[in-house]
Amino acid sequence: MKHDARRIAIIDLGSNTARLVVMNAVAGYSYRLEDEIREVVRLRQGMTERGLSDDAISRALSTLRLFKRFCDSAGADVILPTATSAVRDAANGPAFVARIRDELGLELRILDGEREAYYGVIGALNEVGLREGCILDIGGGSAQLSEVRQGRYVRGESRTLGSLALTERFVRHDPASRKELGALRAEIQAQVSSIPFIAQNCGRHLVGLGGTIRNLAKIETIRQQSPLNTLHGFVLTRASIEASVKLFGDMPLAKRQKIPGLSEDRGDIILAGALTVLGVLEQLHTDELTVSTAGLREGVFFEHFWEHLQYPVIPDPRRFSVLNLARNYRYHEPHANHVRFLAGRLFEQLQPLHEGGTAERELLDAAALLHDVGTVIAYDGHHRHSETLIRYNGLAGFTQREIAFIALLTRYHRKGTPERDGYESLLSKEDEVVLRRLAAILRSAEFLERGRNAAVKDIIVSWSDEALRLTLIAEEHPAVEIWETERNALPLLGKAFHRTVCLDSLAAPPALG
Amino acid sequence: MKHDARRIAIIDLGSNTARLVVMNAVAGYSYRLEDEIREVVRLRQGMTERGLSDDAISRALSTLRLFKRFCDSAGADVILPTATSAVRDAANGPAFVARIRDELGLELRILDGEREAYYGVIGALNEVGLREGCILDIGGGSAQLSEVRQGRYVRGESRTLGSLALTERFVRHDPASRKELGALRAEIQAQVSSIPFIAQNCGRHLVGLGGTIRNLAKIETIRQQSPLNTLHGFVLTRASIEASVKLFGDMPLAKRQKIPGLSEDRGDIILAGALTVLGVLEQLHTDELTVSTAGLREGVFFEHFWEHLQYPVIPDPRRFSVLNLARNYRYHEPHANHVRFLAGRLFEQLQPLHEGGTAERELLDAAALLHDVGTVIAYDGHHRHSETLIRYNGLAGFTQREIAFIALLTRYHRKGTPERDGYESLLSKEDEVVLRRLAAILRSAEFLERGRNAAVKDIIVSWSDEALRLTLIAEEHPAVEIWETERNALPLLGKAFHRTVCLDSLAAPPALG
Repeated sequence: MKHDARRIAIIDLGSNTARLVVMNAVAGYSYRLEDEIREVVRLRQGMTERGLSDDAISRALSTLRLFKRFCDSAGADVILPTATSAVRDAANGPAFVARIRDELGLELRILDGEREAYYGVIGALNEVGLREGCILDIGGGSAQLSEVRQGRYVRGESRTLGSLALTERFVRHDPASRKELGALRAEIQAQVSSIPFIAQNCGRHLVGLGGTIRNLAKIETIRQQSPLNTLHGFVLTRASIEASVKLFGDMPLAKRQKIPGLSEDRGDIILAGALTVLGVLEQLHTDELTVSTAGLREGVFFEHFWEHLQYPVIPDPRRFSVLNLARNYRYHEPHANHVRFLAGRLFEQLQPLHEGGTAERELLDAAALLHDVGTVIAYDGHHRHSETLIRYNGLAGFTQREIAFIALLTRYHRKGTPERDGYESLLSKEDEVVLRRLAAILRSAEFLERGRNAAVKDIIVSWSDEALRLTLIAEEHPAVEIWETERNALPLLGKAFHRTVCLDSLAAPPALG
Repeated sequence: MKHDARRIAIIDLGSNTARLVVMNAVAGYSYRLEDEIREVVRLRQGMTERGLSDDAISRALSTLRLFKRFCDSAGADVILPTATSAVRDAANGPAFVARIRDELGLELRILDGEREAYYGVIGALNEVGLREGCILDIGGGSAQLSEVRQGRYVRGESRTLGSLALTERFVRHDPASRKELGALRAEIQAQVSSIPFIAQNCGRHLVGLGGTIRNLAKIETIRQQSPLNTLHGFVLTRASIEASVKLFGDMPLAKRQKIPGLSEDRGDIILAGALTVLGVLEQLHTDELTVSTAGLREGVFFEHFWEHLQYPVIPDPRRFSVLNLARNYRYHEPHANHVRFLAGRLFEQLQPLHEGGTAERELLDAAALLHDVGTVIAYDGHHRHSETLIRYNGLAGFTQREIAFIALLTRYHRKGTPERDGYESLLSKEDEVVLRRLAAILRSAEFLERGRNAAVKDIIVSWSDEALRLTLIAEEHPAVEIWETERNALPLLGKAFHRTVCLDSLAAPPALG
């Protein structure tokens, strides 16, 4: 099967920032971010009832001209340019779009509030696998709340609750005065309660996206000294946001900008954004939200990437994110799949001893597919490189605890005594027991497939109270696999299952000498 | 140009250990380690005047059988099996070789002492770029000292100064008694002084290789808290080895094995090896040696890899190691080369201001070729990934200080204020000034090639006491490059050269609107 990679460029002209992202993608198979340019345009600045100001138009034009040139030189196969609230709300928006078309040959699509909400949802659903609940997307100009039923976008509402828009309207002092904060809260409360479907969604799951929410999450990961370098699956609590709001409220901008994790160019507007999140949590009667790192741009991209699907959301984002990472790092597919198969066979047959269920099985599967990705860095120490790559990239759809598990399983697939060191904030003492058993299974499967040629077809597992026997099914005596497994995997397997382990093979060993 | 990668397997049957390494290589173009298996065979154990013992032969046979099977299943295109001192010294060595041929179809080549020395030298010369001096290779059974003239192997002598052989012969107590140490030193002194060319090489450069020397170096890097994770270019001093010897001598084996950096299976024999190094340093009247991580196995490999050369040593190992790393990480060659060209043009013309010479130019070149290798991990944060990859892999032929420089230059090619933080053991305060200037040049070149399509053909640099002007030569107005360079590179360039910087272009900008 031949895969042709194409470059898909997405332009997102927001109220505050213009962004160009270039994805390198094989439709429906794999994708990765290849380049990104970001420019603060502040399109909304100086906007009147006649529309965008001349200065803003000229800034936007020169930025888009550069983006277009960049797409040309980067060899973009497809360009998908979109604009949101500032252009949408401007009386001269259509004239602006016509000018862009004439001068740059770019067909800028103005997304209405509903469409903007839709794309944010498509981005998020491809990442978090939400079935029922709401998705909150806070931008610079507006914020969208959307309802999701049976894994699909149902409806969305846009309100002028963007961090920049609220800050410009309500905050004059640094830090904001008590009176300004009161007015801000009241405005947020009023606007959020005007969303018609808010009451029906009380207590349902909330997913959040956009720079403000990502930034609040980032601050919290630093507070927690998280071992992961990814926001995939991160759960942001009301208590954490309240702590941040307190911090922001007490500091002038110059000091605020030094808060670890806070983006420098967001220090002035983050407070309003944080208050909006709190307002939504309050009216949904919920105490937390799951962060999605994907949003509008990714939604626009996924519509293109999944165009062969009836609905542009992959039914199982977890499974896809594992495959996507493996493919991006050019995994050795037959080997990884055979390790997964053998690990699965051990897991099933050992079930009465480890009592693991589908959750553990899925972690083992993911780790088996990803165990060797670290070889992209170097063969030496590749188990540690695999851990690093998973810790760094994360895996969409998985919780942070699950990502930690998968990273550590790959870490220990070759050697070492599996432990949660450094991951204590995500894994409990009991998790460590599970980790050790799964790592023992994965390591056995890896060494039973040491020759990378599926010499061991299957494994029959039997045990007594003291002993554990693995009988290998093979066409020829799998000497390499037996030798390597005995040396490198059986000690851990024995320890994890408190038994003496022995290996035999149903194929006869070759006659010696 | 089409490159066909082949798998080259090298088998090294040593006195203590048998090793199989599989290299993935495109002859003369690039190579990387793909797999490795190591087994302690202790072939010399129980050896008598009749030769290798039956037990040792049987251990070696089953290990080689497994290696052969592994080569078959891994799809090795070429297998190069060699044996050294144990088989060479054994009366039944030829019979052993015949048996291997008959039973396994492997043509085991017994290397005589001179040939063993030669291959070690070929490995080392491809790594360290030595012109005149000696190379010391300490194995388990024997040690080789070789003379190098005009970058070529001239002659070598083998002595039974292997770590294992010496330990077995002289050490009975744990730790070794004072009397045993005395006998060891006397034996080493006698054997080293019997090497005919030792006196003529006094004061010349010494390069060391083999597990003992690598391990002594590793212990020292941990002592120094080195920021690098590589031994390429590491200089091991007599003082450091003496400190280690003192440490080993005072401890029983169980404690010794816990010394940070010491391989567990080397704890029993490292002392004898360290004393051999000291003995050679003493008689060469020199106080240090440069570590080569490549040796016999790599020498055998390079003979194959460089078969199109008259002599199997690449004339410029530094240049090749940079290209090899870039190629292994699939660098974007036209972009990297154009960044290198532009950086070079800036460097040349700014020479009166920075006063850098060929040494600095070479660091800049290397960093330009490698600046984007981190994208193999992820686009986001790829400057940090590039640093990590260089810090981890190192670069053959460069000193540790130079590797640190190149790693940091790639680290700062996109953003941040260049500083030596974490690298204080390798870089001085003055180096930091050079680092900042070179990073400013590299960053300017990177953003002047932001569109990755060589839009900027060349740069004319001019300056006064206050101002610095870059005039860009281009066919079309390079708008993306000017815009990105102004925002992202000129602030650092201005700071590094204490001038206000401006950009202009010899191509006319397009008429606006």
